[in-house]
Amino acid sequence: MKIGKYEADEYLKMAKEFHGYDMPGLIVGGFMVDLALKNLPEGEVFDFLCETSQCLPDAVQLLTPCTMGNGWLKVAYTSRYAIIIYNKYTGEGRRVYIDPAKLDKWKEIKVWYLKEKDKKEQDTKKIFEQLLEAGSDYMSVMKVKVKDAYLAKGKKIPKPVAACPSCNEYYLKKLGDKCPACSGDAPYELIK
Amino acid sequence: MKIGKYEADEYLKMAKEFHGYDMPGLIVGGFMVDLALKNLPEGEVFDFLCETSQCLPDAVQLLTPCTMGNGWLKVAYTSRYAIIIYNKYTGEGRRVYIDPAKLDKWKEIKVWYLKEKDKKEQDTKKIFEQLLEAGSDYMSVMKVKVKDAYLAKGKKIPKPVAACPSCNEYYLKKLGDKCPACSGDAPYELIK
Repeated sequence: MKIGKYEADEYLKMAKEFHGYDMPGLIVGGFMVDLALKNLPEGEVFDFLCETSQCLPDAVQLLTPCTMGNGWLKVAYTSRYAIIIYNKYTGEGRRVYIDPAKLDKWKEIKVWYLKEKDKKEQDTKKIFEQLLEAGSDYMSVMKVKVKDAYLAKGKKIPKPVAACPSCNEYYLKKLGDKCPACSGDAPYELIK
Repeated sequence: MKIGKYEADEYLKMAKEFHGYDMPGLIVGGFMVDLALKNLPEGEVFDFLCETSQCLPDAVQLLTPCTMGNGWLKVAYTSRYAIIIYNKYTGEGRRVYIDPAKLDKWKEIKVWYLKEKDKKEQDTKKIFEQLLEAGSDYMSVMKVKVKDAYLAKGKKIPKPVAACPSCNEYYLKKLGDKCPACSGDAPYELIK
């Protein structure tokens, strides 16, 4: 069983190292990315979008050239376990998601995914075994067009940087007269 | 010159491989993370927050255990080049940022960061040399307390999952009667 270009156990080792610990979501994510790549029209320049930040972004970052820092991977939170591979200029692509209609067959995966039992009552070994056996069997693919906000803008025009008159730090001028933090969106407060 | 536990050239090689291409931002990010870790009280359980998704998340993911997929790294966009290391339970931490008052000394870095010249007129070699020479010289550290939204909630209580009555897919029930996508926040539209 392969995940992307890796043998499953090779991928799992790599994923555990990057992610810090084993997680069923890393296996799900691995097979999701694998299925997404297989549904990609040849020669396509693609980006990825994850609908949750739970595990899936790490699978994308490990199996594709797309990372959070290079901008080819984005998260648009809907809390559903799904990823979208899409042409970064047109937005056309494929969405890979967990298909409830196909999940009944996989009891252990369902126990984990729907939290049908408390974590300590879950049989982790069985869950992992079933995830590896199932591959992408419980997933489906739909054709989608990603919204404009997630597309690359073609030729990159450098965005002017300005010193914020309030904090003095540099920010993207197009965002307003002050930086977003000084306009009320700071993720922190100063302390002594 | 070291970046985290790596020699600078070792880090740069690793960063280029993960990120896909060389970027000044990866060096800036490397030294930011390095400075943040040095300002961490010993034994602290920390998370990271980046104020831009440009390059900095990749530096954090390469140099620390924090990744997008394991939830220990978050992005709160202000467009400023800054990262915050913080106690994931109390929110207290340190913010590392590019200090405009210290940047004048480093002409090439300023040319790059403030986009004072067109990209093709920039001397990339000089910029990289100066970034490696400067280390974290043009950065400052402030004490901050990160807002509650970015904190870990202590003992993890499993969040109930439900089937969305509209799309049938599973989502976090606490988010409403329908999943966020069916409530109007889908990042895509269906196509044929």
